[in-house]
Amino acid sequence: MLKNIRTDLAVECLTETGPSLPPGVRRDTETIGQTPVTRVVIETEQAAQTIGKPVGKYVTVETTPFHRFTSDFENQVKIVGDEIKNLLPDGPALVVGLGNSAITPDALGPEVINLIFATRHLQKDFAAISGFEHLRGAAAIAPGVLGQTGIETAEIISAIVQEIKPKAVVVIDALASREIARLGATVQISDTGIAPGSGVANHRKELTEKSLGVPVIAVGVPTVVDMNTIAEDLSDGQPVSLPEKGKNMMVTPREIDTIIENAAKTVAFGINLALQPSLSLSDVISLVN
Amino acid sequence: MLKNIRTDLAVECLTETGPSLPPGVRRDTETIGQTPVTRVVIETEQAAQTIGKPVGKYVTVETTPFHRFTSDFENQVKIVGDEIKNLLPDGPALVVGLGNSAITPDALGPEVINLIFATRHLQKDFAAISGFEHLRGAAAIAPGVLGQTGIETAEIISAIVQEIKPKAVVVIDALASREIARLGATVQISDTGIAPGSGVANHRKELTEKSLGVPVIAVGVPTVVDMNTIAEDLSDGQPVSLPEKGKNMMVTPREIDTIIENAAKTVAFGINLALQPSLSLSDVISLVN
Amino acid sequence: MLKNIRTDLAVECLTETGPSLPPGVRRDTETIGQTPVTRVVIETEQAAQTIGKPVGKYVTVETTPFHRFTSDFENQVKIVGDEIKNLLPDGPALVVGLGNSAITPDALGPEVINLIFATRHLQKDFAAISGFEHLRGAAAIAPGVLGQTGIETAEIISAIVQEIKPKAVVVIDALASREIARLGATVQISDTGIAPGSGVANHRKELTEKSLGVPVIAVGVPTVVDMNTIAEDLSDGQPVSLPEKGKNMMVTPREIDTIIENAAKTVAFGINLALQPSLSLSDVISLVN
Amino acid sequence: MLKNIRTDLAVECLTETGPSLPPGVRRDTETIGQTPVTRVVIETEQAAQTIGKPVGKYVTVETTPFHRFTSDFENQVKIVGDEIKNLLPDGPALVVGLGNSAITPDALGPEVINLIFATRHLQKDFAAISGFEHLRGAAAIAPGVLGQTGIETAEIISAIVQEIKPKAVVVIDALASREIARLGATVQISDTGIAPGSGVANHRKELTEKSLGVPVIAVGVPTVVDMNTIAEDLSDGQPVSLPEKGKNMMVTPREIDTIIENAAKTVAFGINLALQPSLSLSDVISLVN
Repeated sequence: MLKNIRTDLAVECLTETGPSLPPGVRRDTETIGQTPVTRVVIETEQAAQTIGKPVGKYVTVETTPFHRFTSDFENQVKIVGDEIKNLLPDGPALVVGLGNSAITPDALGPEVINLIFATRHLQKDFAAISGFEHLRGAAAIAPGVLGQTGIETAEIISAIVQEIKPKAVVVIDALASREIARLGATVQISDTGIAPGSGVANHRKELTEKSLGVPVIAVGVPTVVDMNTIAEDLSDGQPVSLPEKGKNMMVTPREIDTIIENAAKTVAFGINLALQPSLSLSDVISLVN
Repeated sequence: MLKNIRTDLAVECLTETGPSLPPGVRRDTETIGQTPVTRVVIETEQAAQTIGKPVGKYVTVETTPFHRFTSDFENQVKIVGDEIKNLLPDGPALVVGLGNSAITPDALGPEVINLIFATRHLQKDFAAISGFEHLRGAAAIAPGVLGQTGIETAEIISAIVQEIKPKAVVVIDALASREIARLGATVQISDTGIAPGSGVANHRKELTEKSLGVPVIAVGVPTVVDMNTIAEDLSDGQPVSLPEKGKNMMVTPREIDTIIENAAKTVAFGINLALQPSLSLSDVISLVN
Repeated sequence: MLKNIRTDLAVECLTETGPSLPPGVRRDTETIGQTPVTRVVIETEQAAQTIGKPVGKYVTVETTPFHRFTSDFENQVKIVGDEIKNLLPDGPALVVGLGNSAITPDALGPEVINLIFATRHLQKDFAAISGFEHLRGAAAIAPGVLGQTGIETAEIISAIVQEIKPKAVVVIDALASREIARLGATVQISDTGIAPGSGVANHRKELTEKSLGVPVIAVGVPTVVDMNTIAEDLSDGQPVSLPEKGKNMMVTPREIDTIIENAAKTVAFGINLALQPSLSLSDVISLVN
Repeated sequence: MLKNIRTDLAVECLTETGPSLPPGVRRDTETIGQTPVTRVVIETEQAAQTIGKPVGKYVTVETTPFHRFTSDFENQVKIVGDEIKNLLPDGPALVVGLGNSAITPDALGPEVINLIFATRHLQKDFAAISGFEHLRGAAAIAPGVLGQTGIETAEIISAIVQEIKPKAVVVIDALASREIARLGATVQISDTGIAPGSGVANHRKELTEKSLGVPVIAVGVPTVVDMNTIAEDLSDGQPVSLPEKGKNMMVTPREIDTIIENAAKTVAFGINLALQPSLSLSDVISLVN
């Protein structure tokens, strides 16, 4: 029963369905350096129904927990960058950071946007002055959340996509996971975009190729678990009576400030590398600081 | 000669033209409580050329300096709210906070947006639940600056205006003043919108009724003075040799963090009162915190 | 069995010992306005052993959850202020904010210090200028944590107490609770100071009347629960196998930024009212902003 | 006449006294890589009177302006580290960050403290676990300012020095300069400590070898200029009538947030290298993040 379990991670949905994979699903895991990378492909609509995620590709990079220092930082950024590049079509891109910058565990998107190297507006003489050539056009925006703006995020993004006509959109968002241990320790990359309430067709709210007209790559890091999930998980599926006040609570690690800071660097630098393959990581770091 | 003097304040432009007003300009000053309010009207294109500001109405509210506590806070918010309301047409409005949230003296716009009560998305049952009725539709966005987004701000706003079709736009921005003493001590409200490089028709960059199709009210607070202005001002117009490094420097008061915080409250609460006349100031404060 | 249950709240320790109170413990609850206030007195060393908290008085104020707006804010501040005043001796006081300002759920202490009205240094003419008379000497410091400073907090505070010789110390700290529902919804005030690892005499680490030579009032708000506690709690005491990575994790609500901001205001304004009974709440707010 | 000119930089005081050096003063400039380093020695009390700075050594490192990215960052950190090391005696050290963290141009000290690698408390097994050996004992504190704490900073530091008995103190503070062009573009290192109102013996307020009993190295970066200085400077010494409101204003560059962030990194990493010569810069960066 998945009813009370909320997760945005395809790998966690798979675990729920039992030890063997359902038909129409492929999964393989590769370890790059010290970093496990799992690629899941949901190939059929029926598999999508079973698993509760849309048809598409989902890559999970298991990073060092983002609240700890790692000497492997550079490699992890490159893995994230490579996986995004594999899913990203050529041409100008719009990077969108979802979430509320005033709530730390929800601030991944806005923090990533602060570290994206926007190039769409650069004049022709920039290459001559800086020495950086062959840059792909990149735009970046953190539109805020519905409660702040009064406007559905999908409406804002749709309007901007029509205005600047990118060839692809990259959407960043903080995710919910089922397992506490995955919080701040995983990056998920998919080519499915973001569709709240999967299965329900609500085009006003989704950011997908269907709604925007161009491919949408979604990149996320789990930063919260909801209390119902923890309760279900710990009780081996037995009914659990959560106190009323705790029912809709989301929990997040104590080190969430550091997690968001480091996760934003890993994701943003990875996106910059994917968008601008002619730049090195140290070019990227110097350009966005 | 205004050449080296940069100011966004109409009242300062007037001072430059000498003791008597040029033809086509009206100015009167009223003191409300302890707060001087100056209203300037530029009535003709010729006056606009002379003064260097577009035809329209400009209201200057001389507040207590925003880095000091004032027991007159509530009155000043109400004055700002009333002056905005006088210029603002009825109907749904979009509030736009210009500027870069990462540079404190430029962060007025984004900070105001954090304090705007967005209502456009509220469901019909909100009035019943909250007791707040007859709310005007309000949306709010801080789009970031060109260097961060790669997109002209005017393009973003124009796209959103077409999408959500408000009846008016309110634009907030940090301003440059000529006099150090005005920094963080004045709110300017005008019905002219914002047009960088006045006189030059650059519709891609301006936020005006002409470019957006609806009235645009601009609200700003001076937070910087440029060094050339200080130099000119102190030397009584004599030629001044600024050191090369200082030439393009903008200066700002040491207490800029407090100034931005308090100016954002005054402007945002004033806008909320102008948009929602049925709310009291304490309603507004409770709704946005 | 209390072994795996970590809580800093005396009321929660009592619940653990069963439905009836152990000998040597008194507890009564009063509702002030809408706010339940529970006062626990641990009277004997034997009761202290049973309960796991030192002999002394513990007051728990059950506030509106700090991430929600409440029109009852003013009353709650006054209740917190009155309860602190009841425990606080006369004379100059030192207010100490424990915790790490860089980790939001641990930042309660430093945030409170930012809102304390320090008066110890005010010159004699301050009363004449401001109109505020009969102010008690108050000093305030947020010393940082051992990992940042390399110095035991108790060493720093002890040195300052010897230097400025206050008649009382008020210590603020973020607390751990057992119940998720109490996070950000309770203020605990006690006259026992703070002694990590109760029962173990470690004077270098404790902030108590014994170690500092003056009464120490402790004020705290629960902001984290540890995962072991959640696991124990949800499994009705059955053995639980937590995943290795989750074992030492602390969890905190998603709205922790707002909780800390509002909790700091309630605690700090309450302390200011307790220290300076001649001031009104609006005096206090104006003096610390 | 120095009367209206306020500067904390010894090199700027020298300029004031005319083209030739006064007796008892030595000055030489060396360019290390691309970075000019000026060393001034004030050798006699008479020279100290003439110049308005105490007897001692003053090193000025002219860095790339801290609001710009520089590929020379690593070299500049090493120069700052080497100059501090030259003045710093052996043995355990206490690093003190002066200033108010809530006022950006005054926040250099607290920001540096956030990046100091505190080692005094590390257990013997740290070397075995981390591989970092032969670490010098380092403690670090940002005590806040008198207006926040109610306690003279010198009292707090004196109490802590007596408690932990370091062999040297390093004090970091934001400075005032005379020239706008020096703001955020210079690090001054001296062996004189910090004595407000030089010439006046006020031991309660100074942080010097005389007051603390151990050598005090002062490290600072100019972040503000006062308006009187700007006025005097631009008017070639002619009398200037500043508007009343501007008279006591301090001005600071618009990019002050970035300046403080990068200046804090340069100073803090330099201090860490000076304290722990066995560490590389990348060790330092990984240890403090």
